[in-house]
Amino acid sequence: MRGAQALVGSLVGAGVDVCFMNPGTSEMHFVQALDDVPEMRGVLTLFEGVATGAADGYARITGRPAAVLLHLGPGLGNGLANLHNARRAGTPLLCVVGAHATGHVRHDAPLESDITAVARTVSGWVHTSGDVRDVAEDAMRAVAATSERGGQVATLVLPADVSWSEGGAVAAPRTSLPPEAPCKTRVEAAADAVTRPGAVVLLGGSALSARGMDAAGRIAAATGARLLVETFPRCWDTGAGRPRVDKLGYFAEHALAQLDGASSLVLAGARAPVSFFGYPGVPGDLVPDGCAVVGLADAATDAAAALEELAATVAPGAVAVAAPLDAPAPPPGPLDVRSLCAAVAASLPEGAIVVDEALTAAAALASALQTAAPHTQLALTGGAIGHGPPVAVGAAVAAPDRPVVAVQAEGSALYTLQALWTQARERLDVTTVLVNNSAYAILRVELARTGAGEAARSGRAGRMLDLSDPTPDFVSLATGLGVPARRAETTEELLDALRWARSEPGPHLVEAIVPPLG
Amino acid sequence: MRGAQALVGSLVGAGVDVCFMNPGTSEMHFVQALDDVPEMRGVLTLFEGVATGAADGYARITGRPAAVLLHLGPGLGNGLANLHNARRAGTPLLCVVGAHATGHVRHDAPLESDITAVARTVSGWVHTSGDVRDVAEDAMRAVAATSERGGQVATLVLPADVSWSEGGAVAAPRTSLPPEAPCKTRVEAAADAVTRPGAVVLLGGSALSARGMDAAGRIAAATGARLLVETFPRCWDTGAGRPRVDKLGYFAEHALAQLDGASSLVLAGARAPVSFFGYPGVPGDLVPDGCAVVGLADAATDAAAALEELAATVAPGAVAVAAPLDAPAPPPGPLDVRSLCAAVAASLPEGAIVVDEALTAAAALASALQTAAPHTQLALTGGAIGHGPPVAVGAAVAAPDRPVVAVQAEGSALYTLQALWTQARERLDVTTVLVNNSAYAILRVELARTGAGEAARSGRAGRMLDLSDPTPDFVSLATGLGVPARRAETTEELLDALRWARSEPGPHLVEAIVPPLG
Repeated sequence: MRGAQALVGSLVGAGVDVCFMNPGTSEMHFVQALDDVPEMRGVLTLFEGVATGAADGYARITGRPAAVLLHLGPGLGNGLANLHNARRAGTPLLCVVGAHATGHVRHDAPLESDITAVARTVSGWVHTSGDVRDVAEDAMRAVAATSERGGQVATLVLPADVSWSEGGAVAAPRTSLPPEAPCKTRVEAAADAVTRPGAVVLLGGSALSARGMDAAGRIAAATGARLLVETFPRCWDTGAGRPRVDKLGYFAEHALAQLDGASSLVLAGARAPVSFFGYPGVPGDLVPDGCAVVGLADAATDAAAALEELAATVAPGAVAVAAPLDAPAPPPGPLDVRSLCAAVAASLPEGAIVVDEALTAAAALASALQTAAPHTQLALTGGAIGHGPPVAVGAAVAAPDRPVVAVQAEGSALYTLQALWTQARERLDVTTVLVNNSAYAILRVELARTGAGEAARSGRAGRMLDLSDPTPDFVSLATGLGVPARRAETTEELLDALRWARSEPGPHLVEAIVPPLG
Repeated sequence: MRGAQALVGSLVGAGVDVCFMNPGTSEMHFVQALDDVPEMRGVLTLFEGVATGAADGYARITGRPAAVLLHLGPGLGNGLANLHNARRAGTPLLCVVGAHATGHVRHDAPLESDITAVARTVSGWVHTSGDVRDVAEDAMRAVAATSERGGQVATLVLPADVSWSEGGAVAAPRTSLPPEAPCKTRVEAAADAVTRPGAVVLLGGSALSARGMDAAGRIAAATGARLLVETFPRCWDTGAGRPRVDKLGYFAEHALAQLDGASSLVLAGARAPVSFFGYPGVPGDLVPDGCAVVGLADAATDAAAALEELAATVAPGAVAVAAPLDAPAPPPGPLDVRSLCAAVAASLPEGAIVVDEALTAAAALASALQTAAPHTQLALTGGAIGHGPPVAVGAAVAAPDRPVVAVQAEGSALYTLQALWTQARERLDVTTVLVNNSAYAILRVELARTGAGEAARSGRAGRMLDLSDPTPDFVSLATGLGVPARRAETTEELLDALRWARSEPGPHLVEAIVPPLG
């Protein structure tokens, strides 16, 4: 058995049965093995950033790693931004990077580069498989490593000759360690903190499941503690029927106002809050002076279970206050960010997965979705844009029975728009609501906030933040990639387009035109 | 003066007056400085791989570095593949990577990552500027470093606070070392080798200028030595009026046949030839047994000057045999790769820059262009695809008076198609001939060559190499990015479309449909 066959066979045995890929010459035997191991589903992408983002989205929904198959150092480079986001999400992800044959490395051929140096910047585990007899076992170690530390990227470098040589054998899966159980000492400390006036519980990571949210809601109902959700949740069960919780603001001033007066901050699956960027004269650490920080559950701990233990201590018999299903009809007329988000919320199918790369529209979106039908939100955990379209691919592959609605800023979409092609090929149920304001609008805000000044839209600096001249036409772009698309300039048109998207199978894109900021 | 102003002012003083950019929040002061330093031309790209590839193309044509401005580790990741190609080309390139403010790093905010570890894999020089008083001097060191070792990437990591702080001062440029002069001992050894029967001269790097090619032609005329050009030339002056020289084949078998019987191999700006990939049972080192390898000029040496010295020694008074201007009319009817390349050659304007990311069409293209109007070819030096559209941007910015013709495989184009938008915004004279065969055709060849087998196009493996279902529509895609486009399915339609593209200013794309391979 060739190494590639042993590898692919072992992966499906370990439950890794989806591989998002951009193969090249050194990966041809892996590709060929798809014909031998039909349990492995290969999903082709047109760019590596789509493959890595899709694997992130897939694992966020299933809790299991997908594999990605990349071509040497440059392929890894192309996939790096979304591996960064996966690292920040704590996503279990198996990254297989094909490499030159062992005997070919010495020739320093054009595609040779330092793969492991790049891989280490995003991976918790990196290994180069050196022998066909080891490759399947190495892969099993890699799969097990993806679940360590609460979830991480494991990178297996796969030389072409290890793939093509005979002598491989399927290896048995290794036992993956479950998340750590809650620590009783921490639960007691959190119980003490959360029952004092002015307590805030910051929810993140594995706390954001329906189970964790319900426990948090009971804690809040019993103690009066305020709940907040981290700014960029990896996978958040929210909407009607679940506790209504605000997200911590993106801008430091907003977050500081939300945390103002907190006597204690209980961290459940979330890290202590810090500012996304540093700004002149603005603190990076957002914890108010004098506020006690109590870690209930870190990334490696089952935060939902920790919240349930905390609820059992401080809120026996309490009932969470659930958000009502109340998505008001959006105001008619020309679209703006607020009416756009209201339209998305009002038409959201129950059980949808919402992929949020809305950037300047994200706050309005989060607000509108609080009383929308129950759904799951996936956000941009690492700040590396170009995340949304690929994550939508992975989420839709993970949950073919759940509609995926991606609310997507245009500038970010243009990083990884190739994802639409994979949505078309795989007939994925994804509706992309493309928010087009013809600018890197978030940067126009940031230019002022950093004190750099106000850039005239037509000035030399301002043009670097402007996406008009020419304004990309996303209906054309989506159609060119095989995804049916429409443009909406009014609320009525958007609602109509969303109905159209839901009325037929497969992916759709609705380009929603909103006014430029500022 | 803020650090960013001092930096940008110093760069233009050192002749670095173009910056291809994808800025983010940490780069806002650099962007704002464009309003203060009008000599710096900022060119916005929609994806970092476009910025880095454009800087590569720019420097290949001008011989001077452009700057790129990237946003933290993920931005560098997105630009990495084309920095890899630049590294393999020996391109002088200044890479400025914005980073979190010095005091913000400790918070491990979402976008924090190990920038320098990634940068070192593609850069000959990496430094983080730690103080506003040093930043301009650091930039001048970086610019000087770009010309070392024959040309390399220099990466300056720029913390946001170093940009925004007052206390900067413009620094004077440092003297860049010129390429090393030819070594007399090497010229003598080469003279000895080249005058023996069976000598081959392999030309690459800086040997491929008009000057170097003319000297090589004289050497061949006088000595009977055979000339070959490296497989992926970074910047090659060729076509009618210049010596007719074949490129070394991409596939090892082809290259071995070309080198068969060589008694000596003189390397002029080229490295000793190796196989692009390793294959089972195929040697990686392509130098025939018993062939003496003589290094005339390495990457750091002025190879054109070395060839002139060699010509003065072995070919005084000789005249090179120039290729005739003889681009035959292409056969009419449905397009195939051969008629497509003939049409490009027949309609090539004199002085054009041809960007070759034609992959499976590259051999036919090189052959057809040998007797086309004199022109300059830029090829994919590092094998990281998605190079052509960005390089066309940079070449067109570098030489606004020269038409750029990009012959582009469709699978590779989809990596960095966002480059078309920058072509539109900057009104660049680029005609992209998009070769669409609906497949990663090169991989269908490689699948067989690696011994992995023959993949049925519709099989599970074959579908991973197939770009139909859906077939991307490049007319739609180009139009969506602001570039006028037409489709051609016959020679007549292609010639007509090429005339149309030349008849009006700005970029155009012609999607040329050719039959799938195999």
